[in-house]
Amino acid sequence: MDESAYAKAGVNIDQGNKAVEKIKDMVNRLGMKEIGKFSGFFPLKKDLENPVLVSSADGVGTKLKIAFLMNRHHTVGKDLVNHCVNDILVYGAKPLFFLDYLATGKVDPDVVSSVVSGVLDGCIDNEFILLGGETAEMPGFYREKEYDLAGFIVGIVENKQIVDGHDIRKGDLLIGLPSTGLHTNGYSLARHIVFEKLQLTVDSRVSGLNRSIGEELLEVHRSYLKPVTGLFEQKLVKGMAHITGGGFIDNIPRVLPENVAVQIEKIWPVPDIFTFLCEAGKVSEKERYRVFNMGIGMVLIIDQNHLSRVDEALKSLGEKYYLIGQVTEKRGKERVKIK
Amino acid sequence: MDESAYAKAGVNIDQGNKAVEKIKDMVNRLGMKEIGKFSGFFPLKKDLENPVLVSSADGVGTKLKIAFLMNRHHTVGKDLVNHCVNDILVYGAKPLFFLDYLATGKVDPDVVSSVVSGVLDGCIDNEFILLGGETAEMPGFYREKEYDLAGFIVGIVENKQIVDGHDIRKGDLLIGLPSTGLHTNGYSLARHIVFEKLQLTVDSRVSGLNRSIGEELLEVHRSYLKPVTGLFEQKLVKGMAHITGGGFIDNIPRVLPENVAVQIEKIWPVPDIFTFLCEAGKVSEKERYRVFNMGIGMVLIIDQNHLSRVDEALKSLGEKYYLIGQVTEKRGKERVKIK
Repeated sequence: MDESAYAKAGVNIDQGNKAVEKIKDMVNRLGMKEIGKFSGFFPLKKDLENPVLVSSADGVGTKLKIAFLMNRHHTVGKDLVNHCVNDILVYGAKPLFFLDYLATGKVDPDVVSSVVSGVLDGCIDNEFILLGGETAEMPGFYREKEYDLAGFIVGIVENKQIVDGHDIRKGDLLIGLPSTGLHTNGYSLARHIVFEKLQLTVDSRVSGLNRSIGEELLEVHRSYLKPVTGLFEQKLVKGMAHITGGGFIDNIPRVLPENVAVQIEKIWPVPDIFTFLCEAGKVSEKERYRVFNMGIGMVLIIDQNHLSRVDEALKSLGEKYYLIGQVTEKRGKERVKIK
Repeated sequence: MDESAYAKAGVNIDQGNKAVEKIKDMVNRLGMKEIGKFSGFFPLKKDLENPVLVSSADGVGTKLKIAFLMNRHHTVGKDLVNHCVNDILVYGAKPLFFLDYLATGKVDPDVVSSVVSGVLDGCIDNEFILLGGETAEMPGFYREKEYDLAGFIVGIVENKQIVDGHDIRKGDLLIGLPSTGLHTNGYSLARHIVFEKLQLTVDSRVSGLNRSIGEELLEVHRSYLKPVTGLFEQKLVKGMAHITGGGFIDNIPRVLPENVAVQIEKIWPVPDIFTFLCEAGKVSEKERYRVFNMGIGMVLIIDQNHLSRVDEALKSLGEKYYLIGQVTEKRGKERVKIK
């Protein structure tokens, strides 16, 4: 074997370096640094009394398969960042920095740079930085032109301002903020319904939807950072739940004290993509709210006396919201009652 | 479709929850918290004047294939943690916390808990905590009984104590700390040589090696936290390079100022696994030091006047080391000369 022994084994260091160069270019243009080193550096301000770091890891899940089918790789990076932002935002944390992990069988510099540029755009939209990341070439792990993508976020919050739901009590109100679509959960079921059961393609159009199925399913998972930050500053939020995998049923109880439950009324307009999927897939009423977000991507729990201030703050940002339920006494095991 | 629609689509929330329960049990026994929430919390001490967070993301790469072949999933978690520890350690940073990302086609609770228990053990060995993580079930992404694993570490260092190589100059010495084996790089080539070219199995034994090929290749990537921490405290290290993907050739220059190069003499005993792989694979002399660590997992650059103190510190810990070279003037493009 000669110099190219490594390349013959399926790992092409030069192609990998080419992708790194592309990413470096983007990163340099944006004034970020340290790509290509062993790690990234983040100088901490010392403006908090009792600072607490809040950190979360997540992936994009099988939504990636839609990106593969459409050969469109920019949006999944944004999905990833926004998902992670929302996961720390629920505690009142402000994002500081992000790292990504991209693994693929064979590095295609164009695909890699497209994914990472989406990650970068996500960071910019949320006003924090991409501190580093890993692009792993793993022959024999992924199908041709496929990859997996994970992200890690670190944010910060003053200890006594952590939003943890401890003072949620009977009578508090549930505010639902609209989702943009499926966000990043329910894709295994959605793909099963669309591609296996109905035998559609990403280019298919169905009645009731204005865009192709692929475009509907690839719609970016939104970040709730901007609408919610102002509410935190005014201390108007008692608890928040990001409606991801496990839907309403699994996510809302994460923020509830032991002695309460919630009752939700389905008063918001369910986006057509959910109606289409649930009808075509004969998904039961109960399961819908465990698998999908059904049009509500973030739930805020507020004191009923604060409703007019919350209304004012959200309206001033042009942010739609729905009053979707209230906190009740817990009777029996059920924590989330949907009627 | 009924309640089990999601399960039919290949995602089993209950199996996933079972794995989470197993992990929770382990985590609770170890006094850690917050698994099952959206994120993890880490209260920051305020004992540094100008604290800098240092963060890195990494994976285990195709070493995972050896774990699959041997059906042994505990060690790759340790590999992951130690790799990440070393990547921030090179800057003098002390690890604070870790998060993992584990993705698989179908969650097998035993495999998942074995991997995560390895991650936990790695965190414990290095005396920091596992703050959270994500276990993603992604039907159609991974082969049966396979998975990918990534990790994310956050450490901290006082700004003026960052070890960044800025004062490295001609005449400084290179200290090599022994590796335990391939660590986590060169596995695509190693697997090509062992399983394709030589048609061996993980259970094969070859002359010169005391263990099966699989056991040699699965040996845990070691952490250099303990031997190196004391050297930092005494300010004896000018620069450090973790010898990972890209070997000596790509990693040592990461820490060198522009105007210097290094000359390395191959005076250390190369472990038998490398000799076996390089001979069987006819890997050229030059390529060996780009693909493998060849027995040296970490390179420290020190002032020659500090050699006796470094010697004393390492010997007091029972840590072997080799004086492998020195810093020279840069002549031409070559940064790492190996003779």
